[in-house]
Amino acid sequence: MPHLIVEYSSNLEGFPEAHALDALNATIIASGQVQYEQDLKSRTIRTEQFVIGNDPTALRGFVHAELRLLAGRTPEVKRDLSERIAAVLRELTPHPEGMLVQLSVDIVDMDRAAYYKGTL
Amino acid sequence: MPHLIVEYSSNLEGFPEAHALDALNATIIASGQVQYEQDLKSRTIRTEQFVIGNDPTALRGFVHAELRLLAGRTPEVKRDLSERIAAVLRELTPHPEGMLVQLSVDIVDMDRAAYYKGTL
Amino acid sequence: MPHLIVEYSSNLEGFPEAHALDALNATIIASGQVQYEQDLKSRTIRTEQFVIGNDPTALRGFVHAELRLLAGRTPEVKRDLSERIAAVLRELTPHPEGMLVQLSVDIVDMDRAAYYKGTL
Repeated sequence: MPHLIVEYSSNLEGFPEAHALDALNATIIASGQVQYEQDLKSRTIRTEQFVIGNDPTALRGFVHAELRLLAGRTPEVKRDLSERIAAVLRELTPHPEGMLVQLSVDIVDMDRAAYYKGTL
Repeated sequence: MPHLIVEYSSNLEGFPEAHALDALNATIIASGQVQYEQDLKSRTIRTEQFVIGNDPTALRGFVHAELRLLAGRTPEVKRDLSERIAAVLRELTPHPEGMLVQLSVDIVDMDRAAYYKGTL
Repeated sequence: MPHLIVEYSSNLEGFPEAHALDALNATIIASGQVQYEQDLKSRTIRTEQFVIGNDPTALRGFVHAELRLLAGRTPEVKRDLSERIAAVLRELTPHPEGMLVQLSVDIVDMDRAAYYKGTL
């Protein structure tokens, strides 16, 4: 059931989309928080049009991951998941010279009562 | 005021984007949960880069809908909406032979106090 | 830490993506709600496939902004932010003749305990 969305700014040339998703899925599944490995659905979004802050002279990029889980995890479990995801992204995200690259991870609760899940 | 976002993996070749949005809007409006039909703003996102689980030999796809509503609906109303949306997607989503296609629907509350709404 | 995502329907030809993000960032930073200007990460999404309501004869478009902030702001602060964002979008969004263009702003809380933030 979890969904992972990884967004990154297009100035992070060579961001290894497929490799990053493979590594993130392996890490998240290894956490024990995904009941069936096939439930974890992960994707990347490359953001072409972005502005970071308000200093046009600064060279800046970002990578941001959002993990959506059914509600019910403890704050500790969520914090652990966000740190695991961040560790993978820190290792795999390109770091162009002179660029400030911000890395963030958000853990989002999904409404357990309303969520629908099935297969075709 | 509601927003509907339908994401699908690009291996669901021939996903009928426009037809699915028409059918979803008709279904959601027929539920009686949208005050003015014009308020329902729906769109699709075709996801090119995705990884589902951690078994590279498995053939997998997904379609995921997120309906964002101003907070205040009961869990029963939300559950009914997610099932209506799922029924439409189950009917219209292509099912390539041998592929496990996951279907999910998430109903998201928007903050009523902070939400801004207007027209040009 | 805040994230701003501005989506607009592709029939709003000439939507000034870069200019709008510059103006929105200036406005949001001027509100005093962003600790460091570099923390505000803003981007646009141009939506090609959309359906608004269920009247195919009507000419309709939309622009929708989502501001994600760490939880803790008062409803008044959030309302003020959504109105500031709306004012900028109202000024800068193209208004094709005869089109009903809907404008909306959603302020989303991010989970402070789980959120990860760092730099490369």
